Amino acid sequence: LNYRFTHPMLPSFQFADRIAPLHPSPIHELFKVLGDSRFISFAGGVPDSDLFDVQGIAEATAQALAEEARSSLQYGAAEGYEPLREQLAQMLREKKADVVAADLMVTAGSQQALDLIGKTLISPGDKIIVEGPTFSATIACFRLYGAELISAPTDEDGVDVDRLQELVAQHCPKLVCLIPTFSNPGGATLTLQRRLQVLEMAVRHRVMVIEDDPYSDLYFHGAPPPSLLALSQQVAGSRDWLIYCGTLSKVLCPGLRVGWMVAPRAILAKAAMCKQFSDMHTSALSQVAVARYLQMQRLPALLARTRSIYAERAHAMHAALTRQLGGAVVCAMPQGGMFIWARLTGAGRFAGDGGAFAKAALESKVAVVPGAMFFANNPDHATLRLSYATSSIERIEEGVARMASVF
Amino acid sequence: LNYRFTHPMLPSFQFADRIAPLHPSPIHELFKVLGDSRFISFAGGVPDSDLFDVQGIAEATAQALAEEARSSLQYGAAEGYEPLREQLAQMLREKKADVVAADLMVTAGSQQALDLIGKTLISPGDKIIVEGPTFSATIACFRLYGAELISAPTDEDGVDVDRLQELVAQHCPKLVCLIPTFSNPGGATLTLQRRLQVLEMAVRHRVMVIEDDPYSDLYFHGAPPPSLLALSQQVAGSRDWLIYCGTLSKVLCPGLRVGWMVAPRAILAKAAMCKQFSDMHTSALSQVAVARYLQMQRLPALLARTRSIYAERAHAMHAALTRQLGGAVVCAMPQGGMFIWARLTGAGRFAGDGGAFAKAALESKVAVVPGAMFFANNPDHATLRLSYATSSIERIEEGVARMASVF
Repeated sequence: LNYRFTHPMLPSFQFADRIAPLHPSPIHELFKVLGDSRFISFAGGVPDSDLFDVQGIAEATAQALAEEARSSLQYGAAEGYEPLREQLAQMLREKKADVVAADLMVTAGSQQALDLIGKTLISPGDKIIVEGPTFSATIACFRLYGAELISAPTDEDGVDVDRLQELVAQHCPKLVCLIPTFSNPGGATLTLQRRLQVLEMAVRHRVMVIEDDPYSDLYFHGAPPPSLLALSQQVAGSRDWLIYCGTLSKVLCPGLRVGWMVAPRAILAKAAMCKQFSDMHTSALSQVAVARYLQMQRLPALLARTRSIYAERAHAMHAALTRQLGGAVVCAMPQGGMFIWARLTGAGRFAGDGGAFAKAALESKVAVVPGAMFFANNPDHATLRLSYATSSIERIEEGVARMASVF
Repeated sequence: LNYRFTHPMLPSFQFADRIAPLHPSPIHELFKVLGDSRFISFAGGVPDSDLFDVQGIAEATAQALAEEARSSLQYGAAEGYEPLREQLAQMLREKKADVVAADLMVTAGSQQALDLIGKTLISPGDKIIVEGPTFSATIACFRLYGAELISAPTDEDGVDVDRLQELVAQHCPKLVCLIPTFSNPGGATLTLQRRLQVLEMAVRHRVMVIEDDPYSDLYFHGAPPPSLLALSQQVAGSRDWLIYCGTLSKVLCPGLRVGWMVAPRAILAKAAMCKQFSDMHTSALSQVAVARYLQMQRLPALLARTRSIYAERAHAMHAALTRQLGGAVVCAMPQGGMFIWARLTGAGRFAGDGGAFAKAALESKVAVVPGAMFFANNPDHATLRLSYATSSIERIEEGVARMASVF
């Protein structure tokens, strides 16, 4: 009934069955109050727009239109603009992955890669194992294709691989979808040993693994372990069971909507066809501009700056939480990415109830996201996701002080 | 079996059931030979990139990044960039439609509007009535959501409304999807009287009508009849049963991927949610640049120029076809848009076989599209689609001469 039209003129009309479980994201709802500068937001999952290399992007865009107007403005191939595919393959090769342009297609952010994977591979009733917790839009995206989602437990080293293998053996899922590095929302990073175990599992159980990898460039100290994609060279046959989703949204900017997907070519061919009937192709201007930008070699300096600023903010938030909320909250210091995952412990007014805490915090003009929405099932209601990416250290300390005042 | 992986390592893995009927578009295949300038192509459905207002777009893009970097590069709302929604609503109001920004959402071209309609409204087994012939990517897009497509016959005045009403009464379809103005591929335009009948039918049968309207600005003599959207004010209740899809792809350029959809707000709300989980939002840079471009008031002059050039080309192609192939081909002179729809008549070698003719024509280095692919069922194999949009008059005459030599 909740998916009937609310319009009084349309009592008999129904939406598609697939959208019955859809609800507006609580984060989306939070956005509405966040234009208000009196609020301090730890709720978003967005990069800090003050760090964007606007000048570099403006130069790349001007070059694109001056020198490649036709490629920038005319229809293009569903698979993407060839020079961008070459640049992205080169970028992956620099991270030790064995990839050529024909192994990847360009997508409108990694969100569309997940959507195309769903469209290409998921029949209603197929099972998908995700991490508990995982990115909420991943859950919604796959449910729209009729998938049944199953959560595998995680710890401070990422997904529990032994438990994951048991779940795979038990459920014969169509896909296993992981965010192995600086996970959203959990912040954890899968160890090298577990990565190799995941690849071996993929081959042994003949199960397709998705590596969703938006954050791995945002490390604070050393680089994280190599991607599953890079490690697949060490596990015979594993590349056939691996789809890698990447994006420039967190390292360059999200607004251009440029991501990509590396997959076995038979899958890419079908996904490109599905893309043709979804949006034809990704914005050509975005693609040519990004190809030009990557050629300019400005990304390494931008990344270095972004890493150091996010690292400072992560340390400041972790220290403030520990100092001011140490009795009520436990959280690990992330090694990269954009998020701290916190758990309301036994002590304090809001023990075990992240939803109630987030609501009370909003009244003190600080926004955090209750963690329960990031679980496909068996939510841990005691959790919260906090992003430090967009706030100055002063605002982070003030925000945590407001959180402390809520107790 | 045709949707199993071809990769020898993956014998047991299957694609989603929904993609079983998908095949690469024959047009897509044609594209591969068309980089070769020895070919004359009437096969595309693309605007002439030599007409693009590159300077205007470059100025708009530079302005967007200089003055609204954050809006151009950060995440934005799934519904679209508010000033662009305002501009598009204003543009529709100038064409007598009663539309405000909240009545529309921005999409990645009108193809994505169709995709979101499918995702939001179509459950597997739902029926959709389309024109026979209609745009091939519309057919594929809806089939991916499990729809059963039924063709309504058309004539030189667009869809046969009496027959359409009978089909609606017989099949109780979820949607009726029409391209009422300068149709792709048929070139026909629905008369004013039939437009009003369609709107009355929508109310009487409680069936949602989609007006796909990419071409109506490309008229050659006078403006076409008002859109169903504009006319809905004359038919009580019809606005509740109407979804309008628009795009700038054929009038400004396709590469920015900016289209929109006007729909009842309950549908827009769900479609925006589906968009959030498909690609988050349309390229922000494209949206801000297009909003700026529309503000610059350069579109009217661009349209005037495009109309006059396409009109010359359409006349040249129609005259050449009549003069050189009059015994073998019948075709109507279109009043706008990008296409001539031709039928191989009884006379000549290829009578009734557009596929064989297209193949033979390709050997003479002229590309045309067999019309059969534009029918959801009961294809008319005698038909061909010819686009005059991208060829000079000399090339059009040379191409038609090559076609004549094939006989």
